[in-house]
Amino acid sequence: MKFAEFKQGMVIKGGPVTVTEAEILAFARQYDPQWFHADPARAAQGRWGGLIASGWHTCALAMRMAVDAALHDSESFGSPGLGEVRWRVPVRPGDQLRLEARVQAVRTSSSRPDLGITSWTWVVLNQHDEGVLELDATILFDLSEDKSG
Amino acid sequence: MKFAEFKQGMVIKGGPVTVTEAEILAFARQYDPQWFHADPARAAQGRWGGLIASGWHTCALAMRMAVDAALHDSESFGSPGLGEVRWRVPVRPGDQLRLEARVQAVRTSSSRPDLGITSWTWVVLNQHDEGVLELDATILFDLSEDKSG
Repeated sequence: MKFAEFKQGMVIKGGPVTVTEAEILAFARQYDPQWFHADPARAAQGRWGGLIASGWHTCALAMRMAVDAALHDSESFGSPGLGEVRWRVPVRPGDQLRLEARVQAVRTSSSRPDLGITSWTWVVLNQHDEGVLELDATILFDLSEDKSG
Repeated sequence: MKFAEFKQGMVIKGGPVTVTEAEILAFARQYDPQWFHADPARAAQGRWGGLIASGWHTCALAMRMAVDAALHDSESFGSPGLGEVRWRVPVRPGDQLRLEARVQAVRTSSSRPDLGITSWTWVVLNQHDEGVLELDATILFDLSEDKSG
């Protein structure tokens, strides 16, 4: 979707995606090899009662859902950052995740009218409708391309 | 390192890691397939003048450096979340990244003495000493295991 289609209060839905143990292990072994993410046998004996996904993996899955749902054909060119990130509930093998992204604000830069700025709050929910991840993100849009079209 | 070794004001250094184009593409194509992360030819024509890594990829690389430098043999059992995340400078193929993690606070929960809580600020720097990523994170430590040992 295009920058012009983002409206304050809109909720953009993405997913679902199902998280496999193989994917949890692959991500964890490359980027977050703590035993509760990367070692199923030890994780089964640990306080989480089994393997849980790296929080960064959940973020990455959320990003993929946001790209597929909204950003893939937009004028997005990146993000300056995030507000608070909350990992509320562990993500486990077999969980089915979906994204609900609420658009909080949409504006164009007062000094650079070809710069669009959208902020949105992402909530990732599992198959039990528990919010597993919540974060606030800002996306920048290059509107100069539109004008040259 | 163990929870008891974290001290306020300490700076823990991690890395370096070199980011390859192949790894940028692999991460982006799985989790953030926007063209400026996943399509080298189009990215070369775009505003960034070449491929840049997904910000989530930079976070994942930072996490790996933090695990290798400090968490891998600790009592860490996860994180409730992050404060602000700032992606300040693009990460490009061939960049060499390192982590400087400053310990901001170390405490044990007043209600649960077996719960250790550390907050630290991560700065990821590239080979030009530019801060490419900055974030505040909280790590939880399970101190009950120590007592059973």
